[in-house]
Amino acid sequence: MTTPRLAIGLDIGGTKIAGAVVDEHGTVVTELVEPTPEESDAESVTTVLLSMIERLRAEHDVVTIGVGAAGIVEWPAGRMLWAPNNSYRDWPVREQLEKVTNLPVTVDNDANVAALAEARLGEPYPNMVLVTVGTGIGGGLVMDGKIYRGPTGLGAELGHIILNPDGPRCGCGNHGCFEAYASGTALTRMARDAAADDPDGLIARLGAEEGEVTGHTVLEAVQQGDEVAKALFARLGRWLGVGIASLANIFEVDAVVVGGGLVETGELLLAPARATAREYAYAPTARGVPPVVPATFGGDAGKIGAALLALDNA
Amino acid sequence: MTTPRLAIGLDIGGTKIAGAVVDEHGTVVTELVEPTPEESDAESVTTVLLSMIERLRAEHDVVTIGVGAAGIVEWPAGRMLWAPNNSYRDWPVREQLEKVTNLPVTVDNDANVAALAEARLGEPYPNMVLVTVGTGIGGGLVMDGKIYRGPTGLGAELGHIILNPDGPRCGCGNHGCFEAYASGTALTRMARDAAADDPDGLIARLGAEEGEVTGHTVLEAVQQGDEVAKALFARLGRWLGVGIASLANIFEVDAVVVGGGLVETGELLLAPARATAREYAYAPTARGVPPVVPATFGGDAGKIGAALLALDNA
Repeated sequence: MTTPRLAIGLDIGGTKIAGAVVDEHGTVVTELVEPTPEESDAESVTTVLLSMIERLRAEHDVVTIGVGAAGIVEWPAGRMLWAPNNSYRDWPVREQLEKVTNLPVTVDNDANVAALAEARLGEPYPNMVLVTVGTGIGGGLVMDGKIYRGPTGLGAELGHIILNPDGPRCGCGNHGCFEAYASGTALTRMARDAAADDPDGLIARLGAEEGEVTGHTVLEAVQQGDEVAKALFARLGRWLGVGIASLANIFEVDAVVVGGGLVETGELLLAPARATAREYAYAPTARGVPPVVPATFGGDAGKIGAALLALDNA
Repeated sequence: MTTPRLAIGLDIGGTKIAGAVVDEHGTVVTELVEPTPEESDAESVTTVLLSMIERLRAEHDVVTIGVGAAGIVEWPAGRMLWAPNNSYRDWPVREQLEKVTNLPVTVDNDANVAALAEARLGEPYPNMVLVTVGTGIGGGLVMDGKIYRGPTGLGAELGHIILNPDGPRCGCGNHGCFEAYASGTALTRMARDAAADDPDGLIARLGAEEGEVTGHTVLEAVQQGDEVAKALFARLGRWLGVGIASLANIFEVDAVVVGGGLVETGELLLAPARATAREYAYAPTARGVPPVVPATFGGDAGKIGAALLALDNA
């Protein structure tokens, strides 16, 4: 029996950086998490990555490193070009990490690697749209079992389809993007508006206790039965459903898989998303309506997929 | 020297049915056009198709027939499942035409075949989105030189991405689709609203002369220098640009090609579409902005592409 090869998988989001040692079957052997540094530029993020890599390598022999990062990654060069919610720009991630670690490094968009993990290890959906709902909205497309990136990695920016050109400003600078309506950032914005509208309401009070109003404040308020907080999730889920419907009208898919941190709120988000995706489905009797399902690996898909992709290339 | 093989190409739109005899190089040898019958059901359209085929075959020896039809076509079965702007439903087009003509018949979505013609004979764009603006909005996707249809032909319904969930009702029954905002049908709706708002305006007066207000009325009013009519085209073009931006954010393409009958209005439609597509482009400095260009074959791409596809299969 041969020992399975191990890889480090790193997933750089807008809020946290997740790292793990993963084997070829996608099993997580060890894991770590660090907050994304406030500055979120190439230098500060590199420092965190190298520290995580060092700690993970101290425990396990790994043959390669995979990185999934929120933003536009030039493929296969592994250069981070730009990101809406992090400050890194024109950052040669792959080159820098290979130089320091002396290991082969593969870098891709975070939602692309999450889609890889879901497609390979989750439910068998050879044609799938993955929407990750976290700080931003990430998108992964699986067509006929393969990740669609576009010729140089600039494709599948699903979080930036426009759901209303007169909508709220997005982290990317545009107005009315899917991400501006249905991400964790959108939930925080809506929650702050709700707290300002009703300073005596539960969201405002919990926010005052916590020091600030965030998406977590809304979740806590929901758990305490607050109707305003429930309505915010319904609104977020409705916009998620509109975006999902648009994507399901473009692609013929077996399922729309929802991942990212916010999917851990379960049906609170998914039930309204599902209802709205059905409402806006094109020609549902002729085309059917693909199921909207939670990701098998929830928020863990990114680090697992990053490691799998690296092992494919190693 | 061998004589090139000939095919009949037919393009069934919401307003007209175009037919031609086309050779393997895409050269149109003969052409015909008929209005789409008012009922637009399978029976009435079949009658027109068979009459056109008969007339075209009387002049030329053809080896195969290709049909591009507005609506959702099951691939490769050639069954028209449903269409937003025509009444045909569950129509076994391929089977019916093969039975009567004794020729092999290939049936696909009209925008898919138009995209094939553009990709093969137009500017060399191996990765391309084609948006056809006619009665409805059709979409064709070319990725790495190949047409994307989805596993059974249900994909690439680009006219039904949602540009605003609270927008006007679409022919498909939904609200705020790309097609509800930027098609010939949308122009007619806007023109009728404008005529009702200003019964003494040029659009209303020309409409009264012609018997009804249509998109053509607006074009005529523009040619007479009418500012209201110009503003309608600017609005239509703006929505076209929003839809194009969404699609260009999803796909990494060399160009967005605009075809269909309305592209014959040229810069009137394309200039505002181009400006808006640039305005809503995601991360333009990192990703670039693909050019928005008129289709090489204008409204003729459908019949040419249908014939080429049939010759590929024959």
